[in-house]
Amino acid sequence: MEHKTVAIVGLGLIGGSLARDLAARGVDVLGYDSDPATLQAALDAGVLSAALAPDLEGVEAAQVLVLAVPVGRAPGLLGAARHRLGHLRLITDVGSTKEGIVRAVEAAGLGPRFVGGHPLAGDQRAGWHASRTGLFREARVFLSPTTETAPEALDHAHALWRALGAVTEVIDASAHDRELAWTSHLPQALSTTLAHVLGAAAIGRDRLGPGGRDLTRLAGSDPSLWSEIALDNAAALGTAVRAFEETLRRFRVALERRDAGSIFSFFAEGSAWAAAGDTGGFPPRGRGVILKGDQRPRGA
Amino acid sequence: MEHKTVAIVGLGLIGGSLARDLAARGVDVLGYDSDPATLQAALDAGVLSAALAPDLEGVEAAQVLVLAVPVGRAPGLLGAARHRLGHLRLITDVGSTKEGIVRAVEAAGLGPRFVGGHPLAGDQRAGWHASRTGLFREARVFLSPTTETAPEALDHAHALWRALGAVTEVIDASAHDRELAWTSHLPQALSTTLAHVLGAAAIGRDRLGPGGRDLTRLAGSDPSLWSEIALDNAAALGTAVRAFEETLRRFRVALERRDAGSIFSFFAEGSAWAAAGDTGGFPPRGRGVILKGDQRPRGA
Repeated sequence: MEHKTVAIVGLGLIGGSLARDLAARGVDVLGYDSDPATLQAALDAGVLSAALAPDLEGVEAAQVLVLAVPVGRAPGLLGAARHRLGHLRLITDVGSTKEGIVRAVEAAGLGPRFVGGHPLAGDQRAGWHASRTGLFREARVFLSPTTETAPEALDHAHALWRALGAVTEVIDASAHDRELAWTSHLPQALSTTLAHVLGAAAIGRDRLGPGGRDLTRLAGSDPSLWSEIALDNAAALGTAVRAFEETLRRFRVALERRDAGSIFSFFAEGSAWAAAGDTGGFPPRGRGVILKGDQRPRGA
Repeated sequence: MEHKTVAIVGLGLIGGSLARDLAARGVDVLGYDSDPATLQAALDAGVLSAALAPDLEGVEAAQVLVLAVPVGRAPGLLGAARHRLGHLRLITDVGSTKEGIVRAVEAAGLGPRFVGGHPLAGDQRAGWHASRTGLFREARVFLSPTTETAPEALDHAHALWRALGAVTEVIDASAHDRELAWTSHLPQALSTTLAHVLGAAAIGRDRLGPGGRDLTRLAGSDPSLWSEIALDNAAALGTAVRAFEETLRRFRVALERRDAGSIFSFFAEGSAWAAAGDTGGFPPRGRGVILKGDQRPRGA
């Protein structure tokens, strides 16, 4: 690692795992968490060399600052600590939405050294106790520059994640949020909805087979994190949810009509999409193509 | 195993895995599959000692007959081979719905020696090439007797599955189908719906993170199997789909209103259900409790 000292704010699953990976590679990691027990655990584990103060006093010793807090909290945190950040070579985050933080950072005049980050890693577990080394190995990490990001800052962001085995991919912040509404936020909402529906039917998770367990795993995710993500990406997520509602309604109507042909096609087309795997979905059908190729850059 | 010879019709993921497990325990396994290549592969692998004819000629040598064919095909198969089945001690199946087969068997006068079976095992893969030993270890296997099942036949069904490491549970056929509509058929329909929605948005499965992959795994399931299950359980599945639609709609409305409190509650309640794990869902709320305790026997 070319960075001697990295400061991480928020030591949950993502921030904690990042801290562990960096410390294991000899990087000096400074950190802060609003939960005193988490902060102490990270110090006791020897992952952090020192704690930052709540107002980020101490961050002056770092070359890189990573915000690993819920998406709604990052802008305020940067604003409050703005006067301490002048020397940093890279400021980045790990949030699941990117447009809000990128626009806030630009407004705060921190655009040149900021690169939004979003590692597609982790699971429904949360908190320091769920953090672990190796979490980012072979994971995709989206990098969303601001309109002013300096090439050196972007290089630093690539290097940071690649050193941990991740595959970086540059994507415009708003394109990121539109895509993630479908690929991540919608699946989370569906898993939570299924949990509600099963709960209302008085069915516990122990009654599910392997497939039902797959579908409800995400429901166990941290509600604070996810309510902030859903609010931050409400428009795009709402669009995705509406599309899901309409498709599910069509299936249900076919069921009600005992329409064997439509029911078979429904399962056959879904299976064909799954088998297509890495080829990018159905052939575009004119209607329904929401993300254009140029909005979804594929390489870093 | 107390059964010297077991006949299995249908050598896909479930039938094939059952054949492998029984053969590995020294049981003489006879079998049939409508796909000649599958039948030959099972013979070549030494799993079957002999093939049955398409009309089940040869089944006379067996004490147990297991139907492992798509749920729509089992009743016709039994009816056609009825004159060959007089000597069997147990006739059973492995289908994902139980009421249709149980009623058909009763009508055909085979009730006393029939026990419906449904192992909660397997995944989205299908066919002989996906079959494997050990698939049923620690799996739950539902057993649904007919109104006339002899105690000895039920004992044989318990013994068959327990010998393979499964946990058997007796459940009324119609209660089984109502419960599975929520715990298995609804999750399958949701995964397939998500596949459609992502396909229409021109997004391939390679764009998903770990959570999105969980949600779309089932979409790869065999469409022939699932269209028959959905049709056979259309009424109960339709009810479950409607409940899902209504809950998802409420979440979407909260999103459109940027109703932070409702959005947080949505994720928090889903997470509480997931954390409750084995305790049977939310505390019953009066409304929405579809399956009563007495409809869902818990022990075998």
